[in-house]
Amino acid sequence: MIFRQLFETETSTYSYLLGCQRTNRALLIDPVVSEIDQYLQLLQDLDLKLIYTLETHVHADHVTAAGQLRKQIGSKSVVHRDAGAMCADLLVTDGVTLQVGDLDLEVRHTPGHTGGCVSYVMADRVFTGDALLINGSGRTDFQQGDAGLLYDSITRKLFSLPPDTLVYPGHDYQGNTVSTIKQEIAKNSRLGGGKTREEFIAIMQDLKLAYPKFIDKALPANQSCGLAVEQK
Amino acid sequence: MIFRQLFETETSTYSYLLGCQRTNRALLIDPVVSEIDQYLQLLQDLDLKLIYTLETHVHADHVTAAGQLRKQIGSKSVVHRDAGAMCADLLVTDGVTLQVGDLDLEVRHTPGHTGGCVSYVMADRVFTGDALLINGSGRTDFQQGDAGLLYDSITRKLFSLPPDTLVYPGHDYQGNTVSTIKQEIAKNSRLGGGKTREEFIAIMQDLKLAYPKFIDKALPANQSCGLAVEQK
Repeated sequence: MIFRQLFETETSTYSYLLGCQRTNRALLIDPVVSEIDQYLQLLQDLDLKLIYTLETHVHADHVTAAGQLRKQIGSKSVVHRDAGAMCADLLVTDGVTLQVGDLDLEVRHTPGHTGGCVSYVMADRVFTGDALLINGSGRTDFQQGDAGLLYDSITRKLFSLPPDTLVYPGHDYQGNTVSTIKQEIAKNSRLGGGKTREEFIAIMQDLKLAYPKFIDKALPANQSCGLAVEQK
Repeated sequence: MIFRQLFETETSTYSYLLGCQRTNRALLIDPVVSEIDQYLQLLQDLDLKLIYTLETHVHADHVTAAGQLRKQIGSKSVVHRDAGAMCADLLVTDGVTLQVGDLDLEVRHTPGHTGGCVSYVMADRVFTGDALLINGSGRTDFQQGDAGLLYDSITRKLFSLPPDTLVYPGHDYQGNTVSTIKQEIAKNSRLGGGKTREEFIAIMQDLKLAYPKFIDKALPANQSCGLAVEQK
């Protein structure tokens, strides 16, 4: 398997390129529109054909490259049915498996940060988007955010994975790149170490976060697969 | 590739089992709920794991086995986004490719019989559901039926396939099992032999078909992936 973790510095966003060496087919998780030249170069250098772009959710902090990549190289956009992005080509739900070459991805619906959040499980790793972050979690104060629901998603759908499963998040603001399920169960400051649902909800209610800088631009753009921005 | 064309006699419906011999993964196109024991036996005999059931559309004449198969063996239900079956696990649109083992299917949106009709193209064959039938077409007098639109779908999206492409329809009432694109372009009595859009619309308007026998039961059932029937 070809695997590249890519970091977009303005919004501290991780995107992930996964490729199958036997078939030269690839997928991109949470691509950012500003990085599109890098993706195209990487795909060319690695001789990969991009089949799908997969969103973990409709982002509020950066604009997806899904629509642009679809226009330029014909990749198809994947998102959860309830994410509010009917621009997507393929709408998925909990438990669905997608195959790209020899890569198998299982969709797990992990709402709470947004209503349409999913995590993608692939072999020994899980891409958690903004549900589970390293030593943290996504915020729950907009886009159908719900702290109780996020606690349930993380503890039931993610903490139930094998302990050594690698956790690759949608963001990190402290320079971490990867964690494990075991580490998050033990050490996550918001919901690790046996914290209860009530404790998590209280922590989330007490965060007093600023209004997201890019949400008024990013949200409508992402509901159109990122193309609204291009049409301006 | 493992390939089985299966005939359900009460409604003259064709279902199709396709399997990948390398990975033992399979898919079923337009399964009928009354035939479920046959499918389960076939899958067992051929040592296949059913990944997807694919609907060409929301049927008015028979009830899908998709929901039952999902309950019993965990297969996931695939349907077009506009078909009106939000019970499905995976909602597809025109141009999307799905992979099951070594099998690649391309979705072509072919509305006109219903608004959410698709055909599935796989290598040398196309599964046309009730859009293009052998020497005929689906009716266009209910479920967003539109004769002009069906003409456009068939002539643009199906007649543009390589001439030797095998045509496997959703029904046949005359004992035919398979045709080719070339044969339908030349001989289809409704839109072959160079018939114009206007001629096709006139033919369809003049059919004077009876109200479909099973529609009042089948349509709501299929909008719930066939499970409404089971819950009664």
